[in-house]
Amino acid sequence: MAPKQSSPVIERLAIIGAGLIGSSIARATKARGLAKTVVVTDHSPTVRERVRALGFADEVPDAAAEAVVDADLIILCAPVGANGDIAREIGAWLKPGSIVSDVGSVKSAVIAAVQPALPASVHFVPAHPVAGTEYSGPDAGFAELFENRWCILAPPEGEDQAAVAVVQEFWTRIGSNVEIMTPAHHDLVLAITSHVPHLIAYNIVGTAADLETVTQSEVIKFSAGGFRDFTRIAASDPTMWRDVFLNNKEAVLEMLGRFNEDLAALQRMIRWGDGDGLFELFTRTRAIRRGIIEQGQETPAADFGRRASTPDKAQ
Amino acid sequence: MAPKQSSPVIERLAIIGAGLIGSSIARATKARGLAKTVVVTDHSPTVRERVRALGFADEVPDAAAEAVVDADLIILCAPVGANGDIAREIGAWLKPGSIVSDVGSVKSAVIAAVQPALPASVHFVPAHPVAGTEYSGPDAGFAELFENRWCILAPPEGEDQAAVAVVQEFWTRIGSNVEIMTPAHHDLVLAITSHVPHLIAYNIVGTAADLETVTQSEVIKFSAGGFRDFTRIAASDPTMWRDVFLNNKEAVLEMLGRFNEDLAALQRMIRWGDGDGLFELFTRTRAIRRGIIEQGQETPAADFGRRASTPDKAQ
Repeated sequence: MAPKQSSPVIERLAIIGAGLIGSSIARATKARGLAKTVVVTDHSPTVRERVRALGFADEVPDAAAEAVVDADLIILCAPVGANGDIAREIGAWLKPGSIVSDVGSVKSAVIAAVQPALPASVHFVPAHPVAGTEYSGPDAGFAELFENRWCILAPPEGEDQAAVAVVQEFWTRIGSNVEIMTPAHHDLVLAITSHVPHLIAYNIVGTAADLETVTQSEVIKFSAGGFRDFTRIAASDPTMWRDVFLNNKEAVLEMLGRFNEDLAALQRMIRWGDGDGLFELFTRTRAIRRGIIEQGQETPAADFGRRASTPDKAQ
Repeated sequence: MAPKQSSPVIERLAIIGAGLIGSSIARATKARGLAKTVVVTDHSPTVRERVRALGFADEVPDAAAEAVVDADLIILCAPVGANGDIAREIGAWLKPGSIVSDVGSVKSAVIAAVQPALPASVHFVPAHPVAGTEYSGPDAGFAELFENRWCILAPPEGEDQAAVAVVQEFWTRIGSNVEIMTPAHHDLVLAITSHVPHLIAYNIVGTAADLETVTQSEVIKFSAGGFRDFTRIAASDPTMWRDVFLNNKEAVLEMLGRFNEDLAALQRMIRWGDGDGLFELFTRTRAIRRGIIEQGQETPAADFGRRASTPDKAQ
């Protein structure tokens, strides 16, 4: 059942929060004609001013409550920790039958924070586009960010299936592959594919910054050996990531426990010179990489040397 | 004192091991005319055949002992653990006054393994070009790999300064920035900028592969959230990395101890909901990233979305 590519999915879209994700959704919606009107707002006057200048929104009201009036789909694009407050601010202004969604990297905590603030006549279909860059703000967004990326929908149990279908069509037509799972399972999957990787990247960059035996200038100079990839991850938005860890505590701590257990075993292999054990692990991890490239979630181009000076190599 | 760009640095260069690094050195030497003759060999007949086909070497003898005859500079480009055996194989065939060097990511252990096997008339100037990609083998190499990257020289105490100067000129004219430090300090610096990052990347990819609650297919699908950058690092050559960890045990275990200590503190912040502590760390780590970009060791282009579909963005 292919959607009609020419008709909009909804009449009026409201985006609350114009950072990397919010501004990219607005740009993609305009580029693909998915809504007749795109309304964007942000709690920061500076950001709103910038959104007006960039011109990817039809309307840029000052208040979230104003932005949601008559909207059919309202997407909360603020850091995870702000969603509860926003829901309380907009709750009374939502049109009956409208659909609220979000883009947060955490789902169970967002549902607990948002759902109680919404009127019974409004649907809530939490979503998580698994895409991003290490940059933030309205200038960092671009319309193609979600193309060929996954978007996970994690509706609360018993949510209206017609509302889920609208959000699914919206993300499909933005160019994403949509998968539906329970909020709890989403939080577990993302803990290992995103949250713990960010945490250990932040951690090793912090460790390197605090050493007495190696200077910060040496760390920077010789980062091409592997470290600099961690610094890219550790340059992601601090507010967003603080909120992720505060709101997905259980799943993150569970996955971190597994990581620590495995790292202790690896540490032991090094201490005791178990070359076969190391070789076996280092070989096994290549299979996952191949899977990621085969499924189009990554290019095979060598990236350690950085593209600017690296011809594409596949092997 | 700028080197004469037109004259070769040496007459005859021998490269033992034609993987990513060895084949890149051979290509760069030819491209920049740094040696009159480039001899390349490899212990694998298949690799030697491939080197002959690729055409970046003037001579491709079968044996290392044959390759080093009359060479002025001999660069060992095999995995770190193989260097001792190679030194014993070539020791008797080396020309008096010639210079042996290497490219290993570990220096103290290599010196301990190689130096006793070399005649007193031969100089040993260990080097480490801090550059690479996640690919291996003679097809993966390219002449520009070392441009604007750092190459560390770590000569044993009391090594002949004229020999050090030759190796320094060689790497400078390949396009690298050369820094000289003690072998022990090199091993500590690389433990934090390269070895521990690789170890934790291998580790988390292994953890993800072993989970029961999240399928491997889910890990692959949703890797765009951060995990896939770790898989690139964890796709590096298993033999090379096994040897690195076996040969830089003390420094790696020391840095890993610091990493673990810091991770325990971070874990505690999450458990107790210390948002300010998390925010402070996540902000601090951005400064190191800025330093790396400012020093030209990285481009500011957003890379999470991957270049193919991402316009360059700087902010």
